[in-house]
Amino acid sequence: MTENFTSTRVTLASRPIGKPTEANFQIDRKPVREIADGEVLLQILFLSLDPYMRGRMDDAKSYAAPVGIGDVMEGGTVARVLESRNRSYAPGDIVLSHSGWQSHAVANGNDLRKLDPEKAPISTALGVLGMPGFTAYAGLRNIGKPQAGETVVVAAASGAVGSVVGQIARIHGARAVGIAGGKEKCAFVLDELGFDAVIDHTDANFAHALSASCPDGIDVYFENVGGPIWDAVFPLLNDFARVPVCGLIAHYNGEDAQQPDRLTNVMRTILRKSLTIRGFIQREFADQRPDFYRDASQWITAGKLKYREDIVDGLENAPSAFIGLLQGRNFGKLIIRVSS
Amino acid sequence: MTENFTSTRVTLASRPIGKPTEANFQIDRKPVREIADGEVLLQILFLSLDPYMRGRMDDAKSYAAPVGIGDVMEGGTVARVLESRNRSYAPGDIVLSHSGWQSHAVANGNDLRKLDPEKAPISTALGVLGMPGFTAYAGLRNIGKPQAGETVVVAAASGAVGSVVGQIARIHGARAVGIAGGKEKCAFVLDELGFDAVIDHTDANFAHALSASCPDGIDVYFENVGGPIWDAVFPLLNDFARVPVCGLIAHYNGEDAQQPDRLTNVMRTILRKSLTIRGFIQREFADQRPDFYRDASQWITAGKLKYREDIVDGLENAPSAFIGLLQGRNFGKLIIRVSS
Repeated sequence: MTENFTSTRVTLASRPIGKPTEANFQIDRKPVREIADGEVLLQILFLSLDPYMRGRMDDAKSYAAPVGIGDVMEGGTVARVLESRNRSYAPGDIVLSHSGWQSHAVANGNDLRKLDPEKAPISTALGVLGMPGFTAYAGLRNIGKPQAGETVVVAAASGAVGSVVGQIARIHGARAVGIAGGKEKCAFVLDELGFDAVIDHTDANFAHALSASCPDGIDVYFENVGGPIWDAVFPLLNDFARVPVCGLIAHYNGEDAQQPDRLTNVMRTILRKSLTIRGFIQREFADQRPDFYRDASQWITAGKLKYREDIVDGLENAPSAFIGLLQGRNFGKLIIRVSS
Repeated sequence: MTENFTSTRVTLASRPIGKPTEANFQIDRKPVREIADGEVLLQILFLSLDPYMRGRMDDAKSYAAPVGIGDVMEGGTVARVLESRNRSYAPGDIVLSHSGWQSHAVANGNDLRKLDPEKAPISTALGVLGMPGFTAYAGLRNIGKPQAGETVVVAAASGAVGSVVGQIARIHGARAVGIAGGKEKCAFVLDELGFDAVIDHTDANFAHALSASCPDGIDVYFENVGGPIWDAVFPLLNDFARVPVCGLIAHYNGEDAQQPDRLTNVMRTILRKSLTIRGFIQREFADQRPDFYRDASQWITAGKLKYREDIVDGLENAPSAFIGLLQGRNFGKLIIRVSS
């Protein structure tokens, strides 16, 4: 322990009402405490920004506790070990941690996973080879179960989860139809990711175009957005269709339009078509992570699984980047480069 | 072929708007045609009346074709073979058929199942040992999957499906909480069927009483009614709860109250609690019927599975009995004794 480190931190200053603003965040600096036995001192290299973080900013009941006012914002991180009092880790090791929006952190060695920089770019542990990729993998494997010839639809198709959903669907022989916002993202989904079709949800005739792109209906709708896209997808679901629900980004800011009740029609249709609607969080399937790392690594090597990262430099830019993420302004997996 | 038979038939005279009335039905008599090779002539003994028949009266897209105007109302039946040109059946045999609301019918032998009157009262083939019982069995086995110590809630708990749901839940070691309408039905559910608790949905403080009867929340809600009962059950669902949906009788007459949208909250909750909502029709699991006949027969013999039949005499009373069924006026599995 020869050095004293100071962590630059992004904390939750206040709870947002509707869309978060920069005023909901505060940046401060705080000395890092000394590490105890079993712990390591980490320098954060990359911070993942993900839609679920919006839920943590609210003081509402959820599957995870909210971030407290004044606490560091939560988040997955890739870090370098600076000091270690844990036999499994040595200075210089690169690890996956959950250190949040800050530059330095103390972590228990038991909560880390060592990364091999030779195998894949270390930032991929936050995206295609991390939580978002595993969300796609686990949701399809356990709930969506796409069969050859079936039609799989996913929104935010250029994003961290959606991009993987469509490509895995195609690996299973299914037809992948993506939904994305804007020409540039749509071109990427079709030309780079190799989806069978893509629809721009900013087009006025979006619902009609979606229907035309799914002539045999929809067998799997991987739900990560909700909102008007759900309304366009739902009537197209086939008998026995499966809907894994991993996110509802359109509703995270709580600005839902007033409208007549849709639930009765949805329940009638669930009955009439023998539909499955199933919410999930990837950690429910944690025992499948080794399978995921093996399969996804092979698919990347074979060129079957492509990914795009949207890397923003500087922790101080995390709040604005996160606000943009909730509005679809990112293009690919959004990651903050905290230091290099 | 020595006799000429005439069938008394209940046909669909007109499609109901909202609740069916007797004017939607017509009774006529029609000569029965001669049977061809492979066919049998049946005298109907018992006719099953079930909520799904309301759907067949509408000209709407469903999982089965609607009954045509002037056609015999559809329905499961227990019948006696009068004449046979099928080697598998002899006059006097008792069979399960799907002959509808009429006194006599011609059937293809391939569509029948022979019943053994020594094993169980033949009317049970329409209830506890028939489609309703199998709906309960298949929905729990494949979707609800009750575990020991879990809480299973079912409405219409004195009815053909609900009564079996609760008793099978208890056989699996789960806690069965029934919902029924009126003191008499509630007493039956508790004292005769042996549910752990029962709540009267006609009580003003129904939602509160339900919550108090489910101190550990609800792990399986077997949905067969919808309406206000759903609204009371839904907030009590636990993480990872399963909701098999086999019916929505509260909505069959299409008289849904205008109210603000509930779907967004339901979808958020599906996500937050990792819920499973799954519509089904029992025939999807047809290959499990032999297991069901074996298990249910054993449970009845062992006194673990009890049932109650509400038998109404006379085919001419089928319309009024069916109208009453949709309003919960029956008490037990509703069956018409067509002849004896």
